[in-house]
Amino acid sequence: MRITFLGTTAAVPTRERNHTSIALHYMNEIILLDCGEGTQNQMVKAKVSFMKIKKIFITHFHGDHFLGLPGLIQTMSLNDRSEPLYIYGPKGIDYLVEIVKSLGAYDLNFEIIPVEIKNNFKIEEKHYTIKCVEVEHNIETYGIIFEEKKGREFLLEKALALGLKPSPLFKKLQEGKEVIVNGRVIKPDDVLGEQKKGFKVVYSSDTRPCRAIEENCKDAVLIHDSTFDDTLKEDAKEKKHSTCVEAAEIAKRGGAKELYLTHISPRYKDDSILAEQARKIFENVHVAKDLMQVELSLRKPSRIYIIR
Amino acid sequence: MRITFLGTTAAVPTRERNHTSIALHYMNEIILLDCGEGTQNQMVKAKVSFMKIKKIFITHFHGDHFLGLPGLIQTMSLNDRSEPLYIYGPKGIDYLVEIVKSLGAYDLNFEIIPVEIKNNFKIEEKHYTIKCVEVEHNIETYGIIFEEKKGREFLLEKALALGLKPSPLFKKLQEGKEVIVNGRVIKPDDVLGEQKKGFKVVYSSDTRPCRAIEENCKDAVLIHDSTFDDTLKEDAKEKKHSTCVEAAEIAKRGGAKELYLTHISPRYKDDSILAEQARKIFENVHVAKDLMQVELSLRKPSRIYIIR
Repeated sequence: MRITFLGTTAAVPTRERNHTSIALHYMNEIILLDCGEGTQNQMVKAKVSFMKIKKIFITHFHGDHFLGLPGLIQTMSLNDRSEPLYIYGPKGIDYLVEIVKSLGAYDLNFEIIPVEIKNNFKIEEKHYTIKCVEVEHNIETYGIIFEEKKGREFLLEKALALGLKPSPLFKKLQEGKEVIVNGRVIKPDDVLGEQKKGFKVVYSSDTRPCRAIEENCKDAVLIHDSTFDDTLKEDAKEKKHSTCVEAAEIAKRGGAKELYLTHISPRYKDDSILAEQARKIFENVHVAKDLMQVELSLRKPSRIYIIR
Repeated sequence: MRITFLGTTAAVPTRERNHTSIALHYMNEIILLDCGEGTQNQMVKAKVSFMKIKKIFITHFHGDHFLGLPGLIQTMSLNDRSEPLYIYGPKGIDYLVEIVKSLGAYDLNFEIIPVEIKNNFKIEEKHYTIKCVEVEHNIETYGIIFEEKKGREFLLEKALALGLKPSPLFKKLQEGKEVIVNGRVIKPDDVLGEQKKGFKVVYSSDTRPCRAIEENCKDAVLIHDSTFDDTLKEDAKEKKHSTCVEAAEIAKRGGAKELYLTHISPRYKDDSILAEQARKIFENVHVAKDLMQVELSLRKPSRIYIIR
C-alpha cells in the first residue's frame, strides 16, 4: 500500500504546495481523499493514473478541498473512461456533482454516482473498509479511516492435529466456513487464531484535535491537520484547525504508528519548526510535502521518497 | 507592457504545461485572458499579483479555459480584495458567475460583475481599448484585441509657427480641444499629425485560422492557437483548432509583428517542430511556454525570459 501527497497547503497555494489531495494506492485501485484545484496537474507530475481512481472522498465543502473535481472529471472523460466513479461527500454532494457535470462542455462518457456520507458511514469492500467519522471544523467535515481486512491467523499445527491436510479446505475455513473431515465437523474457530493486522490509514481532514480521530487511529498511519505551529494555537482554535503539537498529542494518545502533518499554512516557508515541535510529543512524525510518496509496510517503517 | 504565459497546454495538463491563461500587464493593471484550472498556482510561481487583476476574459466555455475561476476568486477574497472584478464572456457568463459564487463556502468580500460579450464588443478605457471578435471554434468563442491608445503626434514646429508657446494649451490641443491664442481659434488638427503607434496584443483563443484574426493583427503581438503541427492538419480541421503553419499564415497575411504559438497538444514533448514549420512562413515566431514572460517594446524586438 502506498500514499501519495498531491497537495499539502492550507487554503492558498504556494510555489511548493498545491491544494489538498491525497491518493491511497491499494491493490490496483486508487482512492482519492479530497481534490483541490490542480489535483490533476499534480497527478501528472506524480505519475498517478487518472483511470485507476474508483472512489473520491470530499471531506467537506471548502473550495481548497474540491475545486479540482470538474477538471479531473473532464480529463477522465477525454481519456475515454467508461467505468463509473463514486464520489462521497457530506449532504449536498449530489448538488455538487450536478454542478460539476453542468460545467462540462461535453457529455461525460461515464457515470458519476454521488453518495452522501454521515457520521460512521462505512463502505465494506472485499479487501478493505472505509469509515467516515465526523470531526470538528467550522462546517460539516469528515475524517476518513481506511482499514485493510486481513482475516485471522491460520493455526497450521492445530489443523494438522485435527487430521486436516494442506488442501482447499484450508481456504474454506479461512473464509469462515465449516468443513467435514472423516465425518467430523471442523469449525473455523477450531483452526483460526488472532485477527491479523492489515494496513490502516487515517486522514483527519481539517479539524480541531478531536476524539473521533484519537479513538480511531490505533496502529494507523495518521495524516493530520497541522495548519499552525504551537505558537499560533489561538489561531488554530479560532479557525478550527490544529497545531502540529495538537496533532502529535492525538497520535500519541490514540496510539498511531506514524504521523504525517499536512494542510500547512503558507506562512511556513521553512516547515522544520512543525516537525521539531511535534517530535517532542510523538517521535515518528513527518511533515508531508507535495509529491511525497509513502510506501507502507506492516513490519518495517514506511519508506518515504519525493517523486521528481 | 508585458505578457505572462501562465498556461499553454491544450485540454489536458502536462508536467510542463498548465491549462490556458495569459496575463497582460499594462500600467498598474492586469488583464487575464482565460483562466484554466491551476491559474492561481501559476500566478504564485510567476509572482503575478492576484490583486491587480481588474478584468478577466473567458473566451469560451471549455473547461480548460475557465475552471480556474472559482479558486482564483476565493483566493482573492481570502486576501481581502474589496475592488469589484469584471468577468467578460459569451452568453451564459452570468450563470457561470452564479455557479462560481455558489461554490464558495464563504461570502465574497467584493463584487463580481459579469459582462456578456458579442462580436465586436468593445471596452474603451482611458489608455486602451479591448475588442472581442468571434472566431471559428466548435462553440461560441472570441478572440481578444488589446490596443493601447497613444493619441496623435504633436507637431511642435507648426504650433510655434502659429504663435503658441509651450504651455498647458499644448495638452488641451492633444486632448482634442480648441484653444484661443491672441483672439484666434487654433484647432487640434492644426497641430496634430499622424496617429502614434501603441502596444497591440491579439489573442486568437481556440480557433481555425480565420479572417477575424487576420484582419485585426496588423503590427500586433499575435498569440495564436497552434494545437497541432502541419502533419496533423486534418485533426486541426476536425477539432476546430489551428496548426502552427496555419497560425504563421495568419500572422504573415495579417502583418503581425511577432507570433507566439500556444495551446500546444500534450503530444509534443519536444515542441521545436512547431517553431521550425512555422518559421518557414513567418520569421518572428516563438512557441509559448509556461511562465514565459514577454516584455514588449514599441521600437525594439520583445525581450523574452522564463520566470524561475
